Amino acid sequence: MQSSFSSTNSIIAMEIESTTQEKAGPLALAWDWVKSLPLNFKNIAVNLVRTTKKLGQDDPRRIMHSLKVGLSLTLVSLLYYWRPLYNGFGVSGMWAVLTVIVVFEFTVGATLSKGLNRACATLSAGALGCGAHHLARLFGEKGEPIVLGLLVFLLAAASSFTRFIPRIKARYDYGVLIFILTFSLVSVTGYRVGKILELANERLTTIGIGGATCIIVSICVCPVWAGEDLHKLVASNIEKLASYLEGFGGEYFPDPEDHEGNVMASKGDKALLQGYKSVLNSKNTEESLANFARWEPGHGRFHFRHPWKQYLKIGVLARQCAYRIDALNGNINSDLQAAMEFRNKIRKPSKKMCSEASKALKALALSIKTMTDPSAAKSHVENSKTAIDELKLVLKAVSLENADLLAIVPIASVASILTEITKCVENIYESVHELSCLAEFKSTSVESTVSPEKPQAQLLVLHCGSIKPVLDGDNDHVIITVHETRNIPYKLNFLSHQSPGNHDLEV
Amino acid sequence: MQSSFSSTNSIIAMEIESTTQEKAGPLALAWDWVKSLPLNFKNIAVNLVRTTKKLGQDDPRRIMHSLKVGLSLTLVSLLYYWRPLYNGFGVSGMWAVLTVIVVFEFTVGATLSKGLNRACATLSAGALGCGAHHLARLFGEKGEPIVLGLLVFLLAAASSFTRFIPRIKARYDYGVLIFILTFSLVSVTGYRVGKILELANERLTTIGIGGATCIIVSICVCPVWAGEDLHKLVASNIEKLASYLEGFGGEYFPDPEDHEGNVMASKGDKALLQGYKSVLNSKNTEESLANFARWEPGHGRFHFRHPWKQYLKIGVLARQCAYRIDALNGNINSDLQAAMEFRNKIRKPSKKMCSEASKALKALALSIKTMTDPSAAKSHVENSKTAIDELKLVLKAVSLENADLLAIVPIASVASILTEITKCVENIYESVHELSCLAEFKSTSVESTVSPEKPQAQLLVLHCGSIKPVLDGDNDHVIITVHETRNIPYKLNFLSHQSPGNHDLEV
Repeated sequence: MQSSFSSTNSIIAMEIESTTQEKAGPLALAWDWVKSLPLNFKNIAVNLVRTTKKLGQDDPRRIMHSLKVGLSLTLVSLLYYWRPLYNGFGVSGMWAVLTVIVVFEFTVGATLSKGLNRACATLSAGALGCGAHHLARLFGEKGEPIVLGLLVFLLAAASSFTRFIPRIKARYDYGVLIFILTFSLVSVTGYRVGKILELANERLTTIGIGGATCIIVSICVCPVWAGEDLHKLVASNIEKLASYLEGFGGEYFPDPEDHEGNVMASKGDKALLQGYKSVLNSKNTEESLANFARWEPGHGRFHFRHPWKQYLKIGVLARQCAYRIDALNGNINSDLQAAMEFRNKIRKPSKKMCSEASKALKALALSIKTMTDPSAAKSHVENSKTAIDELKLVLKAVSLENADLLAIVPIASVASILTEITKCVENIYESVHELSCLAEFKSTSVESTVSPEKPQAQLLVLHCGSIKPVLDGDNDHVIITVHETRNIPYKLNFLSHQSPGNHDLEV
Repeated sequence: MQSSFSSTNSIIAMEIESTTQEKAGPLALAWDWVKSLPLNFKNIAVNLVRTTKKLGQDDPRRIMHSLKVGLSLTLVSLLYYWRPLYNGFGVSGMWAVLTVIVVFEFTVGATLSKGLNRACATLSAGALGCGAHHLARLFGEKGEPIVLGLLVFLLAAASSFTRFIPRIKARYDYGVLIFILTFSLVSVTGYRVGKILELANERLTTIGIGGATCIIVSICVCPVWAGEDLHKLVASNIEKLASYLEGFGGEYFPDPEDHEGNVMASKGDKALLQGYKSVLNSKNTEESLANFARWEPGHGRFHFRHPWKQYLKIGVLARQCAYRIDALNGNINSDLQAAMEFRNKIRKPSKKMCSEASKALKALALSIKTMTDPSAAKSHVENSKTAIDELKLVLKAVSLENADLLAIVPIASVASILTEITKCVENIYESVHELSCLAEFKSTSVESTVSPEKPQAQLLVLHCGSIKPVLDGDNDHVIITVHETRNIPYKLNFLSHQSPGNHDLEV
């Protein structure tokens, strides 16, 4: 509402301004414009410097990327500058320059994807183009351009249409583009140029050189891995949700004792509470990163065929949680003094829900970051579920005789949304756990990896499917030894909760 | 939860399968693979045909687009096939083919954006490249490649970095790419090729021909306007929200009389209730459409410099509403029989909120679609606000002595979220109204455009700023004649609500 007020006001202000300007006449206006030129240039320059500095500071890899592009380009320019190379390739060296500029992308995955797409497409379309060229020759001098034109038309139309298929759009869009490009160039220019095979060969080699230069520079000089970025993005998104929940608990259910201090502190936290908003629109970034990541070879902690898809699943759940948080955020500005009595009654379980859900999310983010087993989050998830039960008990016990239902409704809504968020957090936990199995995250309890006395580790491995019990028909399947009483009920509950099928097989 | 269950199960099933396969040995596996080949191919072919058919049916413009690409490509191929043209341009005709393939995009805006970007970038980079070439000549035979290399390195690095600036990324990304490309090609190849100016001239002309072909075909043959798509997308998104709210009202607050019938009907509506989900992730599509739309000339009902940015504002508010709806959707599967007594008490105002908000949204969608004044939605917005007041009255009057607070909480939450949604709808109304002013939507009440007896129309125009009262210093500003008593309080309220500043000036 406030923003709509102010925007309407600003429109009116603009109108007022334009009215005064209309009175001033075009000459005076032009003079004003000329007068303000140096100032405008200065402003633009200052803004540019500021933006550049900020972009570089936000992510220094951007500066590195720019230098890498320059380096690759200088390298392939040697095809021209260095006489022996120029004698070999001649003007075709141009294609290497062109390839470097078009293929070099910020992440290794994107560069690889474009480079491989380009190479495959050039190869196949080149072969097909030569074939088309020879086919058209059969139709005589008059028929040749007509047949060629028809073939180019058909192939271009068909290929353009395949670019609408979502799967192809996501992964091979550039390849299809280059396919049309090369096929048209080879078959059309082949009509005039005699030595078509030689031409195709030269072009293919130089494109190969350009692509290889990109890929080598991109991987060897400070590589930026799309996979790693995706990994960090998902973890940081979960962390942002955690920060919000942590802040919200203190903001909406302040401790009655240090009320003053809390309000003071919360003013500074307001910025922190906005962090979750970037999670709402993270879908496209995540999907393109995942698409690039699958092209990347193993790097650092990630092997080739790392389960990148699972990150997208976690992303979906995190966004779902963010939508709930956005709904919650609508309540934070409501009158915090209303129905203080009722609010105090549900303060303890609600705050516990907030803080435990927040802790669980933080533990999950840490687990993803360090690639360790997320079982540390499990207890927080359990605690937040206990808090739901506690809230239910409190709600059952509350007497409503003198209560003002009108003031209670928004608070009840907060409690209800918090319950929903807790469920979201549990779902996120499940999918991070699935990721930890698929990607074989390190177990946190280092000593309990193989020893048969530790059923906890074994059951985890069982669930993750590294040991295939019963089904193989051999009898050495895991027997639940009951001498570690502290861990077993917890783990059993966990197993039955996660995979009823497997549990049934065991029992 | 269900999905996590089933996915875990499917993982286990896959493990089981892989275990059995491991036992079978590689030879048998290979044989299985060969045996399944024909079936696989058939499946792929069937899927491909089905996908193609569906893509074509969903949007027949896609087929048209593919044919348009083929047509443009065939047209520029004439540069090769037609002897007089080939004699003029020679091998440079290749650049026309290349330009068509790279520049032709689905919407006119995208094609124009790419074409103009390419033309400007080629022109400026070509000139700069020639300059660099002549500068490098001054340094002698040994110095020339070094100076050229340095210049290419510096310019490529700097330009690559500017591609990280969000504003440039959004609008001029392709231009910067082509700038680096052309500069490198001209300055590097210029090192070996003598007649650099002639080369640049030929290339520029053919690129111009290619770009012009794209733009002409794209505009003249069944044009797809990004602006129109954005316009329709925003309207249909608002409609989806309306459908959800309409469905939700019937689903969550069923009439006690026809309970059976409603449950039967609601099963079919379930699919309708999922429509809002596409609104959640519409940000990127909207932004790219808006970016392309600003390149487009006036077309149909849209003039050049149509306020496309305002659509983005409406989009943001619609998404905010969709987030609330997603939170609401979490409640729809809860036990519908719980706390029937309380639910029945708040049924009337809640249902009214739903239906009035839904009607308001539908009226807004219609207003955008037909480009008429959205004042028809105003009464529904007012009604939904009245419903909030009614709900407040009901809540104050409800006796809670025997009520089960635990069962009431989710229903209270629904009521609270509905209130929030009503506020969102009001915001959407405000921004659509702003759009209607900026884009000069047609007034729905045709007879009341200028006549001084109709203060309603005049006040609207006043607010839209077509008449600038008081400020001009002349005295013919609008005087509120009070003889149409039915309209004035409503409109006054409306004015004071929308633009307090302007109202103050008047009073």
